[in-house]
Amino acid sequence: MNIAIVGATGLVGRTMIRVLEERETPLTSLTLLASARSVGQVIQYNGVDHLVRELTPESFVGVDVALFSAGGALSKIYAPIAAKSGCVVIDNSSAWRMDPDVPLVVPEVNAADALLNKGIIANPNCSTIQMVVALKPISDVFGLKRVVVSTYQSPSGAGQRGLDQLQSEVRGQEPTSRITQHRLAENAVFHTIDGLGEASEEETKMIRETRRIMHLPELRMAVTCVRVPVLGGHGEAVVVETLKSCTDVDVRALLSATPGIVVMDDPAGAVYPTPFVSNNTDPVYVGRIRNDDSVENGVMLWVVADNLRKGAATNAVQILEYLMAEQ
Amino acid sequence: MNIAIVGATGLVGRTMIRVLEERETPLTSLTLLASARSVGQVIQYNGVDHLVRELTPESFVGVDVALFSAGGALSKIYAPIAAKSGCVVIDNSSAWRMDPDVPLVVPEVNAADALLNKGIIANPNCSTIQMVVALKPISDVFGLKRVVVSTYQSPSGAGQRGLDQLQSEVRGQEPTSRITQHRLAENAVFHTIDGLGEASEEETKMIRETRRIMHLPELRMAVTCVRVPVLGGHGEAVVVETLKSCTDVDVRALLSATPGIVVMDDPAGAVYPTPFVSNNTDPVYVGRIRNDDSVENGVMLWVVADNLRKGAATNAVQILEYLMAEQ
Repeated sequence: MNIAIVGATGLVGRTMIRVLEERETPLTSLTLLASARSVGQVIQYNGVDHLVRELTPESFVGVDVALFSAGGALSKIYAPIAAKSGCVVIDNSSAWRMDPDVPLVVPEVNAADALLNKGIIANPNCSTIQMVVALKPISDVFGLKRVVVSTYQSPSGAGQRGLDQLQSEVRGQEPTSRITQHRLAENAVFHTIDGLGEASEEETKMIRETRRIMHLPELRMAVTCVRVPVLGGHGEAVVVETLKSCTDVDVRALLSATPGIVVMDDPAGAVYPTPFVSNNTDPVYVGRIRNDDSVENGVMLWVVADNLRKGAATNAVQILEYLMAEQ
Repeated sequence: MNIAIVGATGLVGRTMIRVLEERETPLTSLTLLASARSVGQVIQYNGVDHLVRELTPESFVGVDVALFSAGGALSKIYAPIAAKSGCVVIDNSSAWRMDPDVPLVVPEVNAADALLNKGIIANPNCSTIQMVVALKPISDVFGLKRVVVSTYQSPSGAGQRGLDQLQSEVRGQEPTSRITQHRLAENAVFHTIDGLGEASEEETKMIRETRRIMHLPELRMAVTCVRVPVLGGHGEAVVVETLKSCTDVDVRALLSATPGIVVMDDPAGAVYPTPFVSNNTDPVYVGRIRNDDSVENGVMLWVVADNLRKGAATNAVQILEYLMAEQ
């Protein structure tokens, strides 16, 4: 397959290239596309220099699948153009995620939805992806009644600008650009609150996307999304009320047997996953699996993943690999 | 009143001295006590040098109230000695908090319990104090059914050693002492898990202490306590199920009218409290007050306070001031 990456010079775009190399995803060709100001940059793929080319309406001729990570505004314009040229778009922005004609896919949860695409498939939000991977087996066996989640997210979820603000502040310098008016260093802040409602954009995404991916449109959720000064990796404290009775032992066994999940959970040895440990790795890690005796049936989890990997690039590449396998 | 501070050179002890100065708490004398290795240090109080003296069984003769913040082991030994000399101990360690003969007090919540003391009053855990201040008015008006809380805590809660580990790691140096085997910098980790159960010590404290302070021994709680790389201040995402119907508007009005609480809550302007803003201040801040439509009656809050101030030193001084007013 001929593959293109749109937004190849961004944090997620560069990670997509690394993930394609590491997984040895079989490609015929790789085209790197970006906006005019990045054109001429050279990025290596499998030891070979690849020139970054300018994204234009003609960029998709002969491309089979395009992985987009160039922001919602560009996706809105270029994803339909790419689809019209016969290319399948796997889009990492939020532009298409709630479009009923666009499947929203986490391969461990709803891979087959990808086959219903009409040219565009949406890659979910980072915080959603890692949570639904952990919730899916619990949902299948015990049923979900309500999910309360609080997140501990890296500012890298906002791209290089988020990391730049955090790292400038840590060095004691005034950031040249900001993702929030609040200080990120030594602090805990919220994602953009659009003022249209009480929830932040991130919180709204987690609720809507989780319901859509899991095919549970009525799932009851209470979500608080927080950015903490972590360079990479998101943590999530997930409190799950289930329909059927379940114990920590049941859930530990279930998740340990689930592909894509690594259980790290030994209270006596202080063994649990951290964002730092998840860095540059692909699994969804689960630890601190505990009974919740404050409800009739419930369990508590700590879910961690690298937000640029499983939360973005790796999930997109997994969708690509699924399309390759099913074609 | 003649006041002593035991553990005067520690993070909380030093903060107690600053808080006594700032609040102009009327004292007859201030005696600073610490272990032998700190003896001879000089600390200013109201512009006057105070020599740190060695803590001995004779230290409490003539002392009316002693504020202890020297760790549980020393409190176990010296608080009863002090009490026997006729001194009232306000103890910041966890040593006495669950003793039925020792009141556990947050003045905004259960001040009068302090009057039941038999010589020792316990100051609660930092994460508990700020939460119960926010929960109390909600409990009084709407009733509490269940509380789910996830914390975002500064390692300063573990004292100077916690800050030392974090700051060494930020500078790229190997810490000389550690509060956890995990990296604190750019990470999210848990408090000590004692291996006796699934919960960490901090999580167990929050549950037991909240029930005791609020006189709600059956309160249903699901607690996850996390340390994040914040220099000072704890954040808490609190999801409250109430017995009676309540709205964000009700709760915003109620908390805005509660002494000790500062409501900072304007979604459109990204106005909310952060740990950074809470630093070196005394209030409990509440923001992100939201309806929780995932339950019949519920509301979500973001609660922030300086863990060394309201979470420790200020609360102890408030108990002292209450005793002064009631004597």
